[in-house]
Parts: sequence; C-alpha cells; structure tokens
Amino acid sequence: MLNLPRTVEFRDGKVVLIDQRLLPESLDFYECDTVECVAYAIRNMVVRGAPAIGATAAFGLAMKALQVSHLTKEEFFNEMNESAELLRSTRPTAVNLFWAIDRVMRAMRLSDNPRESAQLALEEARRIAEEDVANNMRIGEHGSPLIGDGFTVMTICNAGSFATVWYGTATAPMYKSLEEGKRFQVIALETRPVLQGARITAFELSRAGIPVKVIVDGAAGFVMREYGVDLVITGADRVLADGTVFNKIGTYTLSVLAKEHGVPFYVAAPTSTFDLRSSRSDVRIEMRDPKEVKEIRGVKIAPDDVEALNPAFDVTPPENVTGIITEKGILKPPFKKSISQLFAH
Amino acid sequence: MLNLPRTVEFRDGKVVLIDQRLLPESLDFYECDTVECVAYAIRNMVVRGAPAIGATAAFGLAMKALQVSHLTKEEFFNEMNESAELLRSTRPTAVNLFWAIDRVMRAMRLSDNPRESAQLALEEARRIAEEDVANNMRIGEHGSPLIGDGFTVMTICNAGSFATVWYGTATAPMYKSLEEGKRFQVIALETRPVLQGARITAFELSRAGIPVKVIVDGAAGFVMREYGVDLVITGADRVLADGTVFNKIGTYTLSVLAKEHGVPFYVAAPTSTFDLRSSRSDVRIEMRDPKEVKEIRGVKIAPDDVEALNPAFDVTPPENVTGIITEKGILKPPFKKSISQLFAH
Repeated sequence: MLNLPRTVEFRDGKVVLIDQRLLPESLDFYECDTVECVAYAIRNMVVRGAPAIGATAAFGLAMKALQVSHLTKEEFFNEMNESAELLRSTRPTAVNLFWAIDRVMRAMRLSDNPRESAQLALEEARRIAEEDVANNMRIGEHGSPLIGDGFTVMTICNAGSFATVWYGTATAPMYKSLEEGKRFQVIALETRPVLQGARITAFELSRAGIPVKVIVDGAAGFVMREYGVDLVITGADRVLADGTVFNKIGTYTLSVLAKEHGVPFYVAAPTSTFDLRSSRSDVRIEMRDPKEVKEIRGVKIAPDDVEALNPAFDVTPPENVTGIITEKGILKPPFKKSISQLFAH
Repeated sequence: MLNLPRTVEFRDGKVVLIDQRLLPESLDFYECDTVECVAYAIRNMVVRGAPAIGATAAFGLAMKALQVSHLTKEEFFNEMNESAELLRSTRPTAVNLFWAIDRVMRAMRLSDNPRESAQLALEEARRIAEEDVANNMRIGEHGSPLIGDGFTVMTICNAGSFATVWYGTATAPMYKSLEEGKRFQVIALETRPVLQGARITAFELSRAGIPVKVIVDGAAGFVMREYGVDLVITGADRVLADGTVFNKIGTYTLSVLAKEHGVPFYVAAPTSTFDLRSSRSDVRIEMRDPKEVKEIRGVKIAPDDVEALNPAFDVTPPENVTGIITEKGILKPPFKKSISQLFAH
C-alpha cells in the first residue's frame, strides 16, 4: 500500500488539503472552513493538479451547501451560484475544475429542499473523490505494461498522487509497476517556475520507494541523448477532441525532445480531463504573475526592471503524443477517432 | 558606447573581477591578490564565461609571475608551473582556460630572466584581454546583419559582455545592432541551475538599453511556437573541428527546438574557443555539485534524500547549428570544411 496521505479530504466539516507550498521541507495540512478559503487555496496553489483541484472545488461547494442549508430555497441557490462562480474564477485552464463544479451543482439541483440538496452535494463530492482514486488505479493498470524492467522514465511537473485525490495520473503506472516488483528509475524535471517536479514529484516518489533523480528542465535533451530515456509520461490539464494536450509549461518542449529521440511520449489523463467542445483557440492559457519567474521562493533572481513572460501551461499537438492513458484504456492515434469512439459509449 | 564595465581587469597589481554571484542585486567587484584567490574565483563562478575565464587565468598567472620574479629561474618556473596547474584544474570544459594559460606560459618562457618573464607574461595577458574585446567587436560586425529590424532573438545563459572581457560573444551582434539603431527584443532563457540568463543577461542587456524578457527554460518551445522567434544566438565553451558545440546545459534542447520550428540557430564563438585536436569523447562534461539543482541561492527546493544530476554543459551536434559567428566571419556547414579552411590561414 502506497505510503502517501490523501491530498484532499472532507473532515469534520472542513476541507483539508496537503499544503503543497511547504513541500519538500514539510508535509503539512491546510484546513478551510469557508469557500473563500478554498478559492484562495486553489488560486494560490496550496492545492494544484487538475484532478485535485476538481475534488477540492467539489468539497468546497458541498461545505458551503451544508453551511447555508438553513436558508430558503432561493437564498440557498443564490449563495451556491455565487460560490460556484467564485471557484470557477480561480484557475482558467484546468477543465476538471469546471467539470467538478458542474457535477456538484447538478446533483444539488435534484432536490428543492436545501438540506437535501446539501446532502446530495456532499455525496456527489465524495463520489468525485472516490472515482478519482478508482480511475487513477485503472490508469495504473492500463499504463503499467508500458514500463519495462530496468526502464528510465521521465516526467515533468507533478501529475502524481499530490495532484489528485490519491495515486496520481502520470505516476499511476509507476506505482502499479512498483507494486508489481519492477525495478525502474524516474527522472523528474524540476519544472520551473513553481518547481513541482523537484519539490513534489521527487518527494512523493522517493517517499513511495521509487528511485528518482531531479534535473533542471534544460537538461532534458542532453539526458535523453546521453543517458537514454525509455519512456515519457506526463499528466494533462485538458485534452481536446483531437488529442491536443494542455499541460504545465515545458511539456511541449519535452514532447519535441521525445520525438527527436524516438522516445514514446504518453499522457495520463482521466476522461474528466477531456474537453470535447472546445477548440485550441477557445482555451485561455493562464498567464501567472511574472514574480514566479523573477523570484524563487522569495529570492530575487532577475533585475526589477526586466519583464518576464509566465505562461503557466503550454499546448502539445496530437502529432507529438504517442498515446493517452485513461481509466478506460490507452488511446492511440488518430486521436480524433479513438477519442470519439471512447466517448460514444 | 556600451554602458557596461569591464568584466576582468588588472589594476594596482590585483586581478579585479565583476562578482557575478551578486547579480542582479548588486554590481560589485571582487579583487584577488593571490593566484589561489583567482583559482577560487574561477571554480566558484565569481567569474564565468569561457573568454572571461581565459583572461582571468592569464592575469592571475601574470600577477603570480610579478610576485615571484625575485626568485631564481628554477624556483620561478616551478612556482609558475604549479600555478598553471592550479588554474587548469578549476573548470574542465572551457577550452579558453587552457588556451590562455598556454599562451602566457609560452610568452614567459621567451626569457630566462624571471623579471623579464614576468613582464612578458603581463604583456601577453593584456594582449589576450585586448584581443578578446577586439574579436567580440568583430563578431558583432559579422553577426549584426543576422538581426533584422523588429526581430525577436532568443539566447541562453550569458554569453554577454560579462562572459568576456567586454562586449560579449552572443551579445555582440545585439550590441552592434543597437548601435546601428535597429529595434529588436531579446528573450533570455533564465538558464537553470545557476540562472545566468535571468541574473546576468537580463541585467546587462537591460542596462545597455535592449528590451529583454525572461522566461523559464521549459517555456522556450511554447514561446517559439506561439509568439515567434526569428533567431537564436548562443555562446560556446568549446567548438570541435566538426562543428560540435559544447555550451551551457540547455543549449542542446534549444537547438532541437530551433530545428523543429525552423528558427536559425547561430553560435557566437571567437576562434580561441575552437579545439581542433579533441573528439567528442575526449571532452569531459563537468558535473557540478547537485546542490546547484537542489538549492536555489540557499533555498532548498528538493528533498534531501533525492539525487540530482547536474551536468554543467551539453553537446550540440553540428547538424543542429546554422552557423558559427567568429571574429573572422560566419562559418557555415559543412563545418569540417569551413573550420579547416579558416584555420589553414
């Protein structure tokens, strides 16, 4: 059994999160008893990772519903709509956020009675969290055969247990392989600017017992060429109907390098991450505060008067993707066809 | 006239260096009056950049020669050989270091009289420094036509004035273009682990009046694809006879991205950076302290018990290089031929 705590929980009427800003120095928890606190936690990356954000928003809404379930029906739904809007505004790129909010709001509307609605909201949030874990374990089962004994696997950012409720997406095939007794190592790109690879992926893999080495992002090409990498697995914040992948800045660069070196490039993503309605130009790439680039954990690394560009995500075109590992199996190109078939069921 | 101080000077019997560890917070100087201090400064990157290191080592040797010129001939040359060895051991990849040390030692041996030898050493060191500036200005003249009005130029690390005695190599075409009144902007990759791009290139370009934006290294692919980049210019720590380029880690990744996006990829390097005798396998890639990856300016960013790989340089194969800008003109592929022709003169 994986020695990792749950990333998101609802406990004693509070949303309890691993505070990922404090990693790797300490593994500590952040508790919210207001929906504003939950919105703050998502916006400021106390919690991050598309599936974890989705579950956090779901529990945040359910918590709010329980808190205002004494109101009249109209007041209750007004409050809930406001809270949903607040949560939607926190991060624009991760599609799971909108998906989870919509699910909870829909479940809630199945009753006219605020107290019943609040219970339905909580049940739906719990379902979202449990489904996430179950889906990740299935991603692990489908993806594990890709990892051969003795492999070196490269990954970027943290699409790990800490990016989900538990077990992770990109890490799921690794954890499954570990459980199966395979030996392999992981190269984690540190993933500037927020360093989720060095701080979080290295932390959770090493805690779980998987050998992991950290490299700077720029070293990915050299390491592929000189040391050899057998497989790349990344997560995704959003996957379009044609297989276009939105993920952490640096993913596209990594996909180009994988193509250049003939290294299979897989994306692990539950179907909740798919957005079949949007096209590339509909998706807003979140531009975050230039300070994330110009300062590292409070230490200034660039002159004050110099600009920095800080796109938080990038876009990997389908032709750079070898396969997409979902809880329902591995999708292969042409993705337009395989994705539409998957969702036809 | 470029508003930048000299990176390396010999003043009042001391080697005076811009202390590059303190940038961008402050522009301060580091003074050495022993050769051990000079070796420390090179090893610990008080001074860095292949041409600057060469000039620093040359002045360090000359200073030592002046200090021991009262000794007997045998004692003098023993001391000098030891100092040369000490300086050679500081950084293994930059070929200018060995080249500059050899030049000073050779000049010194033209006399049997230590006092004369010391003067010859100082003259040779001064010549190396002045040649560096003159060569950089010629690199600027040859390279400037590559930069069109309105261009976006991308660069990595700092092959700028602060990596040379003055004016820089990769920056020389930019400074020349600035003097010619062209408008263009530069995207500086921050260049983890030591962040020379964010700390030093951004500092010197902005001080010189060139608009510069800093991005994280992982964003290079996305920025090329979405914003458009017209030209990449990097420096080099060593260029082999076939055009293989050793340069800061991340350069190879950048060359793959440039190829993928059809962006011309130029390397600016004086002929002192060329190593016609070595092959790829002869060159040791310096592996630096993993702490440079796991800590950023003293702040821990990865778990203690996790390993980091920290190759300081990487290897860009000639097929990824569009041209090499030297003080004698721009070399084009096939490099074996153009390089051998250049050195035949």
